[in-house]
Amino acid sequence: MDRRPGAEAAYEERANEPSRVLALSDGVFAIIITLLVLEIHVPDLAQGQSLEHAIREVRPSFIAFLISFVIVAISWAGHRDLFALIRHTDRALVWLNFAYLLPLSIIPFGASLLARYEKDAVALRMYGLLLMWIAVMRIAIWWYATGRSKLLYAPVDDRSRLAAVLIVAASVIIYVIAILIAEASPRGSLAIYAIMPILYFVGITVARSTAPAESVGAEFT
Amino acid sequence: MDRRPGAEAAYEERANEPSRVLALSDGVFAIIITLLVLEIHVPDLAQGQSLEHAIREVRPSFIAFLISFVIVAISWAGHRDLFALIRHTDRALVWLNFAYLLPLSIIPFGASLLARYEKDAVALRMYGLLLMWIAVMRIAIWWYATGRSKLLYAPVDDRSRLAAVLIVAASVIIYVIAILIAEASPRGSLAIYAIMPILYFVGITVARSTAPAESVGAEFT
Amino acid sequence: MDRRPGAEAAYEERANEPSRVLALSDGVFAIIITLLVLEIHVPDLAQGQSLEHAIREVRPSFIAFLISFVIVAISWAGHRDLFALIRHTDRALVWLNFAYLLPLSIIPFGASLLARYEKDAVALRMYGLLLMWIAVMRIAIWWYATGRSKLLYAPVDDRSRLAAVLIVAASVIIYVIAILIAEASPRGSLAIYAIMPILYFVGITVARSTAPAESVGAEFT
Amino acid sequence: MDRRPGAEAAYEERANEPSRVLALSDGVFAIIITLLVLEIHVPDLAQGQSLEHAIREVRPSFIAFLISFVIVAISWAGHRDLFALIRHTDRALVWLNFAYLLPLSIIPFGASLLARYEKDAVALRMYGLLLMWIAVMRIAIWWYATGRSKLLYAPVDDRSRLAAVLIVAASVIIYVIAILIAEASPRGSLAIYAIMPILYFVGITVARSTAPAESVGAEFT
Repeated sequence: MDRRPGAEAAYEERANEPSRVLALSDGVFAIIITLLVLEIHVPDLAQGQSLEHAIREVRPSFIAFLISFVIVAISWAGHRDLFALIRHTDRALVWLNFAYLLPLSIIPFGASLLARYEKDAVALRMYGLLLMWIAVMRIAIWWYATGRSKLLYAPVDDRSRLAAVLIVAASVIIYVIAILIAEASPRGSLAIYAIMPILYFVGITVARSTAPAESVGAEFT
Repeated sequence: MDRRPGAEAAYEERANEPSRVLALSDGVFAIIITLLVLEIHVPDLAQGQSLEHAIREVRPSFIAFLISFVIVAISWAGHRDLFALIRHTDRALVWLNFAYLLPLSIIPFGASLLARYEKDAVALRMYGLLLMWIAVMRIAIWWYATGRSKLLYAPVDDRSRLAAVLIVAASVIIYVIAILIAEASPRGSLAIYAIMPILYFVGITVARSTAPAESVGAEFT
Repeated sequence: MDRRPGAEAAYEERANEPSRVLALSDGVFAIIITLLVLEIHVPDLAQGQSLEHAIREVRPSFIAFLISFVIVAISWAGHRDLFALIRHTDRALVWLNFAYLLPLSIIPFGASLLARYEKDAVALRMYGLLLMWIAVMRIAIWWYATGRSKLLYAPVDDRSRLAAVLIVAASVIIYVIAILIAEASPRGSLAIYAIMPILYFVGITVARSTAPAESVGAEFT
Repeated sequence: MDRRPGAEAAYEERANEPSRVLALSDGVFAIIITLLVLEIHVPDLAQGQSLEHAIREVRPSFIAFLISFVIVAISWAGHRDLFALIRHTDRALVWLNFAYLLPLSIIPFGASLLARYEKDAVALRMYGLLLMWIAVMRIAIWWYATGRSKLLYAPVDDRSRLAAVLIVAASVIIYVIAILIAEASPRGSLAIYAIMPILYFVGITVARSTAPAESVGAEFT
C-alpha cells in the first residue's frame, strides 16, 4: 500500500463508505419481502371440493404473509432512517448490521411456521421470539451507531437516542405479552402480532407530533 | 442531533432522498419477475408418456408466466416514470410505495393459481382482483406524489395528472369485465388478461402521439 | 408540468437515464444465477444406498447448473459492455431490455429440464432454443442501440456493429447444430452446450487480438 | 466508434468501472444469504407428536443455516475490502469475480446437504471442499487484483499481499483437517465448521492489532 498518508486516508474513506452495506441490506430486505409469498401455496382440491372453498384454507398463510410483510417493511424503514445519519461504517457496525439482518432473514421461516400452525402456542411463541430478536438487534445497532460521532454526519443528542430505544423497547414488552398468553389464548397472541404494526404507526405519529421538530427522534423509524 | 439548522436540513435531505426506496423497489421488481419462472415445473413423465407430450401440459404455466412477466414489467416502467419526477420522499410516499409493492409481490401466487386452475372462475377472478389492486395502488401513489410540489422536481399540471389516472382507470374497467365474465367464459377472461398488455402499448402510443409534447402525461408509463 | 423548456429537458434527462434499467437488470441477473442452484436437489437415500452413491445421481443437475451459470455470466458481461456505450434509454430500448431478460429468466426452468432429462432430445432441443432466443435478443438490442447515436456516448462504426452481430450469430449456428443432432446424438448435443463457453472465450480472445485496438468491437463480449 | 482518442478513453473508463460488478455481486450475496433460510423446512407432525418435539428436528438445519450465513457474511466482507482497493476492472477480474461467486452460490446446496446428513462423512467432506473452493478463489482474486497497479487506487505492498493470503490459507488448512477427520469424527468435523468463524474473528483482531496501522493487510477481510 502506498505509504503516503493521503493514499491511506483515501483507502480508509472508500473502505468505510456505507454504500455497499446499503446495497447488500436493500437486497436482503427486497428478497425477504418477496420470498414471503412463496409460503402461500396454491391449494390442491380434495374430491368434490370447489376452489372457492379450498382457497379459504389459504387464509392463515395470507395473514402470516401480511403481518410479516409489514414487519419487514417497518424494519427497512428503520434501517433507512438510521443509515441516513451514518457517514462512515466501522467493522463492528458492519457485523451489527449482519446481526440485524440475521433474524430478519429467518422471518420467511417464522411466517411459514405461523401459517401452518397458527393456533399452536409453540409456533406463536417462536414467531414472537423472532420479532423480539429483531427489535433487540435494532436497539443494539441504533445505540452503537448513534453513540459514535465519528461514524455520523452530525452528533445525535442523548434524548433522541433514548427516545428511539424506548419506542422499540415498548414493542418488545408487547411481544413478551403475546408470548406469555400464547398458550392460554392463541387467538389473542396472533391478534397482538397483527395489531402491532397499527400501534407502531400510531406511536410514531404521536412521537413525531410531540417531539421537538429538530430532534432526530422525530424521524426515527 | 446537532441543533444547528444546517445540520438538521442536511439530515432531512438525506433521510428523504429517494435512492434507497428505488434500490429496494428495483430489488423487489427484479425478484418478482424472476421468481415467476419457479411456477413452471418440470413435468414428471407418466407411464409410457413422451416428454414432448408432457411438456404440453406446461402450457398454462407458461401463459401465466408470460402475462405476469409483462404486467410486472409494465408496473416497473410506471414506477420508473413516476419516480423520475420525484426529488424527495416523505413518510406517506414510502408507505404508499410499500402498498404498491404488496399486491405486486403476490403476483407469483396469482400466476401459480392461474397456471393450475386456468379454467376455474375463482382463479381467474382472484387474478383479476390482484391486477385491479395493483392498478388502484398505482393511481393512489401517482395522485399523492404528483399533487405535492415539495416532493417534485417540477410541478405537474392537472391535465397530465388526470390523463395518467384515466389511462390506468380504463384498465381497471377492463379487469372488472374480465372478472364478471369469468364464470360464463373462462377463456374470454383469460384472453382479456393476455390482451391487456397489447392494449396498454397501443393506448400509450396513442396517448403519447396526441398529448402535447411538453406534457408529462406523454411520458407516463 | 412546468412549461419552461428547462424543466421539461431536465425531466427527459432523468426519465431516460439508464441507472434504474441497470439496477433492475443486475438484480435479475443476480437472481437467475443464484436460483440455478435450487435445481440441484439433495438426494434421498434409497434402502441401503450410501450418500456417496446417491450424490453421483446429482451429476446431471450439476452439469446443467455449471453450463447455465456460465451462460448467464456471459450474457451479463455482454449486457455490461453494451450499456457502457449507452447514455440515454428510450422506450423501445427499455422494452428490448425486458425482451432480453425474458428468455434469461427462463434459464432456471431450462436448466431444470436439462438436469432431469439430459438424454432426451426434447429437453436438449428446448434448452438450445432458449439459448438461441437469448442470442437473437442480444443481437436485437445491440443492433437497435448502437444504430441510434442519440442514445450513445459516442457513435459506433458500422464495422464494429457488424462484427459483434457476427460473433453472436456464429453461436446461433452452433446451437442450430446442437438442436439438429439432439435426436441422433444426445451426448453430442449436450457436449456442444458445454463447449460453447470455451469457444466463446477463444473467439473473444481472437476477435480482441485481431480487431484494431480502438474499435469497440474489441470490447464486445 | 468515434476514432478520437478522447472518446475511446472515455469508453474504456466506463466499460471498466467496477460499479456494475459490485451491484451484481451484492445482489448475489444478498440472495445467497436469504435463500439459506428456505432450507429450514417447517416440520410435519407425526401422529401424536407435539410441535415442540417436531421443531427440535429442525436443529441440524438451523445449525447449517447459521454456519453458512456467517461464511457468506465473511466472504462478502472480504469482497468489500478487496474492491475498496480497486479503481478499474479488466476482463480477467470480471471472470475471477464470477469464479468466486460460483462456489458461494452453491452454499445453499451445501447447507441443505449438511442439514440433512449432518453425521455423514460424505456430506461433511463436500461442505468442507466447498469452503476450500471459496477460500482458494478468494486468494486467486486477491492475488490477481493486488498485483496489478493499473487496477488499483494505490499500489499494495508485497507484505500486505502475502499476509492476506496467509490468513486465508490458514483457513484452508483447517478445512483440510475437518475433511480428513469427517469419517472418524463427524461431530468434530462439524464443530470445526462452526468454530471457524470465531477463529476468523480472533485471527483478524490479532492481525489488525499487530499489523502496522498504515498497512492494508490490517484492513483485509
